Amino acid sequence: MSELFDRGEARIRWIRSRMPLLADARTEFAARQPFAGRRVGMSLHLEPKTAVLLEVLAAGGAEIVATGNFGTTQDDVVAFLRGQGMTVLGSRDDSLEQHHRNVAAVIDAKPDILLDNGADLAAGIVAAGMADSVIGGTEETTSGALRLRSELAGKLPFPTIVINDSLLKAIGENRHAVGQSVVESIMRITNLMIPGGRFVIAGYGWCGRGIAQYLRAFGGRVAIAEVDEIKAFEAALDGYRVDELENLAEWGQVFVTATGHPGVITRDIIDRMNDGAVLANAGHFPWEIDVDALYADAERLTQLDSAIERVDLPGGRHIVLLAGGRMVNLAGTNPKGNSLESMDLGFLLQSLSLERVATDPESLIAGAQPVPDDIEREIARRFVRALGANR
Amino acid sequence: MSELFDRGEARIRWIRSRMPLLADARTEFAARQPFAGRRVGMSLHLEPKTAVLLEVLAAGGAEIVATGNFGTTQDDVVAFLRGQGMTVLGSRDDSLEQHHRNVAAVIDAKPDILLDNGADLAAGIVAAGMADSVIGGTEETTSGALRLRSELAGKLPFPTIVINDSLLKAIGENRHAVGQSVVESIMRITNLMIPGGRFVIAGYGWCGRGIAQYLRAFGGRVAIAEVDEIKAFEAALDGYRVDELENLAEWGQVFVTATGHPGVITRDIIDRMNDGAVLANAGHFPWEIDVDALYADAERLTQLDSAIERVDLPGGRHIVLLAGGRMVNLAGTNPKGNSLESMDLGFLLQSLSLERVATDPESLIAGAQPVPDDIEREIARRFVRALGANR
Amino acid sequence: MSELFDRGEARIRWIRSRMPLLADARTEFAARQPFAGRRVGMSLHLEPKTAVLLEVLAAGGAEIVATGNFGTTQDDVVAFLRGQGMTVLGSRDDSLEQHHRNVAAVIDAKPDILLDNGADLAAGIVAAGMADSVIGGTEETTSGALRLRSELAGKLPFPTIVINDSLLKAIGENRHAVGQSVVESIMRITNLMIPGGRFVIAGYGWCGRGIAQYLRAFGGRVAIAEVDEIKAFEAALDGYRVDELENLAEWGQVFVTATGHPGVITRDIIDRMNDGAVLANAGHFPWEIDVDALYADAERLTQLDSAIERVDLPGGRHIVLLAGGRMVNLAGTNPKGNSLESMDLGFLLQSLSLERVATDPESLIAGAQPVPDDIEREIARRFVRALGANR
Amino acid sequence: MSELFDRGEARIRWIRSRMPLLADARTEFAARQPFAGRRVGMSLHLEPKTAVLLEVLAAGGAEIVATGNFGTTQDDVVAFLRGQGMTVLGSRDDSLEQHHRNVAAVIDAKPDILLDNGADLAAGIVAAGMADSVIGGTEETTSGALRLRSELAGKLPFPTIVINDSLLKAIGENRHAVGQSVVESIMRITNLMIPGGRFVIAGYGWCGRGIAQYLRAFGGRVAIAEVDEIKAFEAALDGYRVDELENLAEWGQVFVTATGHPGVITRDIIDRMNDGAVLANAGHFPWEIDVDALYADAERLTQLDSAIERVDLPGGRHIVLLAGGRMVNLAGTNPKGNSLESMDLGFLLQSLSLERVATDPESLIAGAQPVPDDIEREIARRFVRALGANR
Repeated sequence: MSELFDRGEARIRWIRSRMPLLADARTEFAARQPFAGRRVGMSLHLEPKTAVLLEVLAAGGAEIVATGNFGTTQDDVVAFLRGQGMTVLGSRDDSLEQHHRNVAAVIDAKPDILLDNGADLAAGIVAAGMADSVIGGTEETTSGALRLRSELAGKLPFPTIVINDSLLKAIGENRHAVGQSVVESIMRITNLMIPGGRFVIAGYGWCGRGIAQYLRAFGGRVAIAEVDEIKAFEAALDGYRVDELENLAEWGQVFVTATGHPGVITRDIIDRMNDGAVLANAGHFPWEIDVDALYADAERLTQLDSAIERVDLPGGRHIVLLAGGRMVNLAGTNPKGNSLESMDLGFLLQSLSLERVATDPESLIAGAQPVPDDIEREIARRFVRALGANR
Repeated sequence: MSELFDRGEARIRWIRSRMPLLADARTEFAARQPFAGRRVGMSLHLEPKTAVLLEVLAAGGAEIVATGNFGTTQDDVVAFLRGQGMTVLGSRDDSLEQHHRNVAAVIDAKPDILLDNGADLAAGIVAAGMADSVIGGTEETTSGALRLRSELAGKLPFPTIVINDSLLKAIGENRHAVGQSVVESIMRITNLMIPGGRFVIAGYGWCGRGIAQYLRAFGGRVAIAEVDEIKAFEAALDGYRVDELENLAEWGQVFVTATGHPGVITRDIIDRMNDGAVLANAGHFPWEIDVDALYADAERLTQLDSAIERVDLPGGRHIVLLAGGRMVNLAGTNPKGNSLESMDLGFLLQSLSLERVATDPESLIAGAQPVPDDIEREIARRFVRALGANR
Repeated sequence: MSELFDRGEARIRWIRSRMPLLADARTEFAARQPFAGRRVGMSLHLEPKTAVLLEVLAAGGAEIVATGNFGTTQDDVVAFLRGQGMTVLGSRDDSLEQHHRNVAAVIDAKPDILLDNGADLAAGIVAAGMADSVIGGTEETTSGALRLRSELAGKLPFPTIVINDSLLKAIGENRHAVGQSVVESIMRITNLMIPGGRFVIAGYGWCGRGIAQYLRAFGGRVAIAEVDEIKAFEAALDGYRVDELENLAEWGQVFVTATGHPGVITRDIIDRMNDGAVLANAGHFPWEIDVDALYADAERLTQLDSAIERVDLPGGRHIVLLAGGRMVNLAGTNPKGNSLESMDLGFLLQSLSLERVATDPESLIAGAQPVPDDIEREIARRFVRALGANR
Repeated sequence: MSELFDRGEARIRWIRSRMPLLADARTEFAARQPFAGRRVGMSLHLEPKTAVLLEVLAAGGAEIVATGNFGTTQDDVVAFLRGQGMTVLGSRDDSLEQHHRNVAAVIDAKPDILLDNGADLAAGIVAAGMADSVIGGTEETTSGALRLRSELAGKLPFPTIVINDSLLKAIGENRHAVGQSVVESIMRITNLMIPGGRFVIAGYGWCGRGIAQYLRAFGGRVAIAEVDEIKAFEAALDGYRVDELENLAEWGQVFVTATGHPGVITRDIIDRMNDGAVLANAGHFPWEIDVDALYADAERLTQLDSAIERVDLPGGRHIVLLAGGRMVNLAGTNPKGNSLESMDLGFLLQSLSLERVATDPESLIAGAQPVPDDIEREIARRFVRALGANR
């Protein structure tokens, strides 16, 4: 374990040194002890950046009981966190059954506060009839918030702050950090030239806007496909070509989906693309490109390099698929995902929201709710200062 | 009158040819006659662009009774509209008393529908006890909406659609059209070089964002002063220097206010500026730069050219003030204001909103309200198509 | 004369206050007196900016004998300069014959040094057999340099420094200042929206590059037509659509020529354009758009506003022509041309080049030659400092 | 060998499919056989992209005798090329002595034509007294061209075309491809956020211009340090802050050198930097950052991740050094270097230049010379067409 610990420690060191907001929070929490005597149950990606968040909560007096998400747990990070005295479940090779057992174990530990991801813990707590013992919690994702507001609506007596509803997160993470990491990943995986290339972005939400902006900034020629009229209007005034996807299929060379919806790039649309078209997905779920239909017709599949696959179709055409249609900014050799500063921002949203839950639950309502406005403003102020935007 | 009519006709011709959305609306309204038998009372700027709007409403069967705003009426436009058979009151040189008589005359004409600007007509109708005879109306401005929602709240039995609440207008007009026209005006009035220049924008709302974006696009170095934390955060991530105005005073060369608030550039801040600093205001009201305080100290005032004035201060420094602190994009020789296409957009919002009021008032609530969502989407679709964004 | 003098003085005051490089040169020249005892003969545009240049030379001890160019002389500027004791010939309404007499009068005055524009003075001096009495001079234009290097090659015993060969001028004036002023002028004259509009630029030299860059920066969608393969390559990598003009004719909405060549936009190409296409020229000569052919077919010509004309063609289509095909950035109501700072740069090139001619003619060769490298570097350094680029 | 061959083949396949210019050249060369009966001696990086170039030359009838550069040879590529029947020397682990023997072996093979890199083959041929048997060749690098024009000047009876003198290469590779790959590499290695970050670029040549442009395009705030006055002037008008490096040291967060000169970031300058400053070099030689002086003072060195190292200095400050001061765009995990399309461009310059040497040496002069103008124009035309810039 010591070797694993060391490796985790080395990787975390660089990251921690670039998260000034969490560093300050750690100092404050150490003094204020907002989580003293509280057990915080967590379900989240266990990778080096999240480790820094856990350190902060622990510094605030929290007893940590955490499990990773299915399939993304990094063992050296787990080793490092256990070395800090936290209860951390899961390993990279866990089966789905083992993962479910890990989630159940977190619930069995009777947490006072939840840091949830996809509402798995909230659903488990409700199913176990333990909701009354929980003070409150946070939910990281939009899909978790959807569960809280539909299947779990009215069943939660405690407040849950939805981190992803934050406007700071939309701007800082969805627009800028995803925009940056998607473009970086496409370059890293394909080694293609951006200036003069023709890119089609499906979806002009926060992520799509960022991806389009960053590709155009690099000299790419960018067209937008967007079914929402208001967003299409915004794209047109931002100077992009705007059309339906089927009309852009023949024009584009690289297609990036960022809609949040399934079945965006269908087999029919692929049929209109030119030989050698490149497909990538930036949305959370791997359903935006109809990969199954693409594979079903393939005459030959060739792995060209990490996260880049050639699909030969009947008639002599081929399509290049990145990351098998999964999130391209987490794919390929040594992907790093969103920037450290954007994660620092997102985790401070988590930290201060959890502190509010722990110390002032009466100021919140039962059920899902946005990050309190004063927390948003406080974090915006700190971020701008840490960035040195005034220099 | 014939000569005035001809001049008005010539100016309006170019404008009309570049307003395809209104051209289509005119054809539709001619067929549908949504305003048949209705008298529409109006208070608005009487200049060539608005003339095209009046033509559209008239084509839809409206009997028009209109007065201009105080001090902005263009006589050739009035002549042209009268030649079309409309009742149009006011002239450029009207006294304030005459202007009030004109507004009263519109109310006395017992309009069924109101196209209001600053809520003058709505207030007059209420005061006259005639509110029950009105079907509904529209309000162009945010300041008018504020009156409707405060001093007139609960007093209006009819619906009023607030055009300026539209997201389309925020994007198309406030961000892009104002951004474009402010930068064009500064160049036109001063003849200064933008690339390499240092600009400070006070306010990062829709207008400030547009002005900053367009100045930077021209190679200007731009800093933002913004008291709202979330907007300051957005500016910082957009890559601008962000600081308080007093800290930027010495750095900037040209200062543009776009905050909507009074007293932004105070005498104290001016005292920190360098010799030759240029001040311009882009906000609706001429109160963002403290012009009175500036003049009070002046040793000498020199009009350098149209809308550009040199203010010599004690101690040998001078300040250059544009347009006396009034809206810079409506100042100087031959200003044209916002682009024709953006006005086409705004006036289609007016036209379709007024049609909704006339033909389906039951779908609306009493009092101030935003543009119905289906109208926003319909207009967004038309605008993108008229722009040829798919080409 | 006194009133004319005052008006000229007021206009020149603003301009002088924004030409810091010339202000410094004036101080230096006053001390060094490089032109003491020298008569400088000049042929140049007599407008407020050039007046500041003349003041600088006069401060350096020069006896000025100047005439304006044909048709561009501004009488209040002439009045102002005469009030300074200079010999200045010409007025706005001079006939061509009178203009030729003015040029002859400058030559008759036996100048020691020439500041030439189009090589008119050099050709006159040679024709008069007076070349041996001239120490040297400068030539402002590329077309003048062409004459010096062809028809006058070998006939000039004295050095002539060609200002327009300067790389500083190419970057500062042709790229940035012309780019800025052309885009400003199109907006000012037409009031059209730039974002989302479709622009075709013919020519990707220094001027074309600047115009394309500034239009795209404002959100315009820009395509380039360029016959030179290397420049077309550069445009493609800069992310523009690149194609032949005939293939872009149907796509574009606004066409701007900046090639330096005649007959670029032919009647055939106009025939492919859509109804309402707008044509503008940014090149020095009014020959890039085939205006004669356009007018020849016109069914009707309508002046829509200053510098904007509607040309109705057979078949119901119309074309909108700006400035009759002359330089668009000098057209319309109250055009100001290139920015003050860019003129400050260009005139310092003139000033220091003329000083070199006057004080160290042996360091130069006979005939046309570029600005000496040390002068270019000295001016670059001063410009960057005056700009405050380090702030 | 078969497994190595397969791996090389798989990597080369993707690359070859994205090099349309070389694909066409291969077809043409197969028909024209310009190198029939010729032995081509080569010294170059043996990696997947260059393998595609060798295939093209072989298709044109060349007998290939090649060696890699010292330390960069990829064994699977060598295996693949040998499998094509070429004579390819060298392996990744060769000692410097073995490398020199490989170069000597290429010379001993009596090549008719040289494809040189750093002028090693040319120097060897001269030293061996074999220069008269060579028809001509190409030189890839600027440093090789320098040797040809100094130490080998007058000693080469045959023509050598210098590929790096090409304007196409300056634009396509140095500006755009290096700009793209440096920014991609900094993001990939550090995971830092670009928008809002403060970057200092030393050098505003082709590479520096590209790096600055791409960083600013991503929302970075960029300052330039440049000792050449003309380039500094260009940077200032491009809207960058411009100052001396020592004055920017305290402001910047990330410093990138691209000057081509040694000792740019000295220990003194590092002393002015803030804690955590990041240093990267984009120039060819690892001498722009004074790494030795940095290490000499270090209290501790920590490898944080691949190509990123923390250097703790006395007094509690630390510096982050990327790639040990070597070219950052070839560093870190799985670096891919310049884009495939830019390499396609560069290798077509090689291919057509070598064909000119082989088939029309009389059109060339002895010694170093630029790529013939007609070849530049032909390649520019092909590149723009292959890019589909007209679409």
